[in-house]
Amino acid sequence: MLYTEIPSHRPNTPLLDTIDHPQQLRLLQHSQLEQVADELRQFIVYAVGQSGGHFGANLGVIELTVALHYCFNTPHDRLIWDVGHQAYPHKALTGRREQLVTIRAKDGLAAFPARDESEFDTFGVGHSSTAISAGLGMSLARRYQKQPCEVVAIVGDGAMTAGMAFEAMNDAVAHNADLIVVLNDNDMSISCSTGGFAKHLAAIWERGESISISKNGEAFVQPHPKWTYNSRLHQSATDAADNVFKAIGFDYFGPFDGHDVNQLAHVFEALKKRSGPRLIHVYTKKGKGFAPAEADQIKYHAITKINAPAVVQIAPKYSDIFGQWLCDEAAQDERLLAVTPAMCEGSGMVTFAKQYPERFFDVAIAEQHAVTLAAGMACEGLKPVVAIYSTFLQRGYDQLVHDVALQNLDVTFAIDRAGLVGEDGPTHAGAYDYAYMRTIPNMVIMAPKDENECRQMLHTAYLYNGPAAVRYPRGNGLGVQVHSQLTEMHIGQAEVLAVYNEQYDDYISVLAFGSRVHASLQAAQSFAKQHDVAVRVINMRYVKPLDEQLIDTIADNTALFVTVEEHAIMGGAGSAVNEYLAKAHIVKPICNLGLEDNFLHQATHGQMLQQAGLDAQGIENSIEHAWLKVINIAP
Amino acid sequence: MLYTEIPSHRPNTPLLDTIDHPQQLRLLQHSQLEQVADELRQFIVYAVGQSGGHFGANLGVIELTVALHYCFNTPHDRLIWDVGHQAYPHKALTGRREQLVTIRAKDGLAAFPARDESEFDTFGVGHSSTAISAGLGMSLARRYQKQPCEVVAIVGDGAMTAGMAFEAMNDAVAHNADLIVVLNDNDMSISCSTGGFAKHLAAIWERGESISISKNGEAFVQPHPKWTYNSRLHQSATDAADNVFKAIGFDYFGPFDGHDVNQLAHVFEALKKRSGPRLIHVYTKKGKGFAPAEADQIKYHAITKINAPAVVQIAPKYSDIFGQWLCDEAAQDERLLAVTPAMCEGSGMVTFAKQYPERFFDVAIAEQHAVTLAAGMACEGLKPVVAIYSTFLQRGYDQLVHDVALQNLDVTFAIDRAGLVGEDGPTHAGAYDYAYMRTIPNMVIMAPKDENECRQMLHTAYLYNGPAAVRYPRGNGLGVQVHSQLTEMHIGQAEVLAVYNEQYDDYISVLAFGSRVHASLQAAQSFAKQHDVAVRVINMRYVKPLDEQLIDTIADNTALFVTVEEHAIMGGAGSAVNEYLAKAHIVKPICNLGLEDNFLHQATHGQMLQQAGLDAQGIENSIEHAWLKVINIAP
Repeated sequence: MLYTEIPSHRPNTPLLDTIDHPQQLRLLQHSQLEQVADELRQFIVYAVGQSGGHFGANLGVIELTVALHYCFNTPHDRLIWDVGHQAYPHKALTGRREQLVTIRAKDGLAAFPARDESEFDTFGVGHSSTAISAGLGMSLARRYQKQPCEVVAIVGDGAMTAGMAFEAMNDAVAHNADLIVVLNDNDMSISCSTGGFAKHLAAIWERGESISISKNGEAFVQPHPKWTYNSRLHQSATDAADNVFKAIGFDYFGPFDGHDVNQLAHVFEALKKRSGPRLIHVYTKKGKGFAPAEADQIKYHAITKINAPAVVQIAPKYSDIFGQWLCDEAAQDERLLAVTPAMCEGSGMVTFAKQYPERFFDVAIAEQHAVTLAAGMACEGLKPVVAIYSTFLQRGYDQLVHDVALQNLDVTFAIDRAGLVGEDGPTHAGAYDYAYMRTIPNMVIMAPKDENECRQMLHTAYLYNGPAAVRYPRGNGLGVQVHSQLTEMHIGQAEVLAVYNEQYDDYISVLAFGSRVHASLQAAQSFAKQHDVAVRVINMRYVKPLDEQLIDTIADNTALFVTVEEHAIMGGAGSAVNEYLAKAHIVKPICNLGLEDNFLHQATHGQMLQQAGLDAQGIENSIEHAWLKVINIAP
Repeated sequence: MLYTEIPSHRPNTPLLDTIDHPQQLRLLQHSQLEQVADELRQFIVYAVGQSGGHFGANLGVIELTVALHYCFNTPHDRLIWDVGHQAYPHKALTGRREQLVTIRAKDGLAAFPARDESEFDTFGVGHSSTAISAGLGMSLARRYQKQPCEVVAIVGDGAMTAGMAFEAMNDAVAHNADLIVVLNDNDMSISCSTGGFAKHLAAIWERGESISISKNGEAFVQPHPKWTYNSRLHQSATDAADNVFKAIGFDYFGPFDGHDVNQLAHVFEALKKRSGPRLIHVYTKKGKGFAPAEADQIKYHAITKINAPAVVQIAPKYSDIFGQWLCDEAAQDERLLAVTPAMCEGSGMVTFAKQYPERFFDVAIAEQHAVTLAAGMACEGLKPVVAIYSTFLQRGYDQLVHDVALQNLDVTFAIDRAGLVGEDGPTHAGAYDYAYMRTIPNMVIMAPKDENECRQMLHTAYLYNGPAAVRYPRGNGLGVQVHSQLTEMHIGQAEVLAVYNEQYDDYISVLAFGSRVHASLQAAQSFAKQHDVAVRVINMRYVKPLDEQLIDTIADNTALFVTVEEHAIMGGAGSAVNEYLAKAHIVKPICNLGLEDNFLHQATHGQMLQQAGLDAQGIENSIEHAWLKVINIAP
């Protein structure tokens, strides 16, 4: 069935309602699977409509999920969902159906598979391309324990371009491991797939042949309709005579129609008759069965809840600020090139990509390559800008150290989604970048207090002739005026934002970084009203280099330093201040506010900040607590 | 010519001596290339004999290097050497011949290509698998600038298994980039190559066909002798009918004999007639032309200088301590599995691999996969140990965060080559691991003061039910007694090692970490003799969790804290101490000793420590300096 609207009332799903454990699914007849799939699809459309969340990819794997749980003895057999944003049907079939409307909310279901949520979630995930490695680990472990089970890793074509998927396939063959990889080929990551691998898959599809498998597990070739899809229409296919999976030593089967649940079930049953590394290639359609999502796959990658109150857009998103800056800077400097690892939309680069196609490089999900590609471009005198989420730069960390910073190459990093990220939860937290970056020589690290400063800092980082990062949060700015003019800032120069209670001699100096500047200002103002001490609030702007001169200047009359950041305390910006105070022999009380040493579960960004004590009230409470300590211990 | 001895006198190389710039090479006749190669080989054998350094890989690429510089217009055309330990012949042909005897020494040539050393070194390197990304960046930059040149990335078969090489090839095809990849297939990384990719290359070699190229650039198939090699003899080959490079969209040529310099020159000339992504597959032999190195390729991967004074081995290497512990622990716990990313020898795992082949997993150069593979094994209740160099764990950073720590999985990390690494220089510095690890929740991080503590900490980390890392330096232990018994230590408990001048009330508390404990002890002892202040030296043992209780206890009578570590000051272990003092409202002077914020050039480990002020004398000087500040500012 093709649906066209998200219902506001729960649809009737009588057969689905009987399935609280996949064992109940497995008692059904083959002939009932289509009905299960249809009800599951209706239910998913409804549930995600209520909760908001990932949408298209989930509709694409309805039949696949039903067939997998029907054929494999889960949870004894291991299903590992790569990325995991397509695991809603899996959650629904494994005892979490009625909770699905809570997904991504505080205290609700996690956005992705999570080991502490269900025994069916064999491997926690959120980042892409880990499933084959994890599955191989499980398979080799079970072989060693002499307790083999079926292990199935389900991986999208977009995720296959990330190198670690290739590393894992290489190793699976080394061990002739008993492992099934389901290549869920929907021709997309969030954007359209790109590169030689995508062309290769297109070539396979266009060849008109499928390698199928008989009931007793024997391979045979049969004709297959020639299909061409989406992005690949624009790509000249490579020669399908050379199959990349067979070349590397996998048994290859497919391509198959990923929405033919009965065929899938037959194929999975037959695959169990074989051993060793096997890959089954299925085509699925993102948004399948919901007409608007089939028609606009990028827009329907994720949706907001249908009954959400209308959002009054008070300020632009930081990603849009970045996107606009990128276009403006490109217009005045021909040397600018932009690189993204498959995050064109999320990073706000759609306009740039259209306006400057020859300067836009979507390298697919390939963060390692993205960073070193930019390094290579910089070697030729160009000025690449790498747009990347904080959490994904972790994938390119060695490249940042070894290829960019060590050579002091002129690469600008626009680091989005830094700090807490809300609904995506701990897998996507951008809470460690100050620590992992500032320990590296040659890095310059900036954190804007608002969207205008973000724009000016991007310009400043771009002009800086070396590796420089601007780190900004997910979501909207503060609504300040954004100056169209680009003005270079003085690197390493902080800004005294406010001074309260100047009549007193002793100061609390609040050194705030990036997204926490505004809340720190509110906190300080409120605190100052109630206390007999002067308070100054400084927008530090630079995590590296710190404004050491300013710290020297204010140290004398500072009775308490407070640092505030949306980053782990351990190794963070406050820690940089501590280091400088030690180096400068400034011996004063200091209070470091930031994220405690734990992973925060998903909630809204505001809820998470409150929980972490990093909203204005939490900051004020902490300043109060620290100040009481100071005046108590003072002589 | 096949040589058998390393000469102690410089060989006569009349033709080679005329080449101070590749332009002079390019003036020679084709027929003279063999003589150049032969002289270059003799020279390299001599030079590396004098300097010590990488050996086998350099002898393997003599003909390749001559042919490349003969055919390409370097430095206008870009040669990018992957890993770079095979770049000695390249350095010799590009104006650095007579300096080659200084390679890896302080103020000598760098161990690897380095952009600040020569315009012919287009991309600095040391870690593997970056060359295709960097080369693609250069090629796309030059295309955009409308100043195209030839770009050639030379990559070993061992390095091809690392995912980023695959990411880069995928992207090269997306852009139909003008890029030549030379696959230097010597069947080895440092160990033998492993995995599906290695099997695939074996299949190609055993097929008996080569895709050659005519003078005007046309491809044709010709018969080729069937060869089988080294490790691949033990591996069943995959089906060579499917060529992985062609599948992904590269033009593929080969296999060719990488020691036939004339054929290589013809092939390179012809390749220039074509455009787009081209891969040429050549077979070379590590150690070629030097009989002992051909016979034992692993041993001759690198050599020490021939006239080095005989080393009196006073203490075992840390890697051997690890290797012995691994065997001992495995003997008493069947759940132990060991994982290495192609560093079996370097990490000290040769004995374990022989003794427990079914528990030993060499995953090839694939750090990302290594970490997540271990995570998967841990999910099944096994206890994997990942042996990895500090600098290479940077490649598996996201996997450490997202796959291991976030799920609090029971994986032990044995982190070798931590701190300064001497001759390999800044690319291999293990100077950032405290910072990038301790910011991650759930991590336990240990640093042993000596080889016995290393052994007991490995045991302790192994018993700990979560992610734990033991971080130890390159080289030998102190010569202390190593207890064969394995004793679990109390995690988070430091050790007061010594107290000097107890008669005084005020203390300098020296908090030393890992490899710097011993030198700190020497420094403190010497300092105490000359000053009227008590000094205590604490072996901190744990970077995370810190022994906060001990710090609380000693804080009262501490007039100055000093932290000492072989790690960047920024974000390091001392920084963790700063954070705790702040949190505990302990307001005292503190001096953080460690590596300053710059990359140190290669020298011996001892020279580098001295330069960094982290030998005993340097530490003493710094304590003195800090103490003078304290007593000057005291009331």
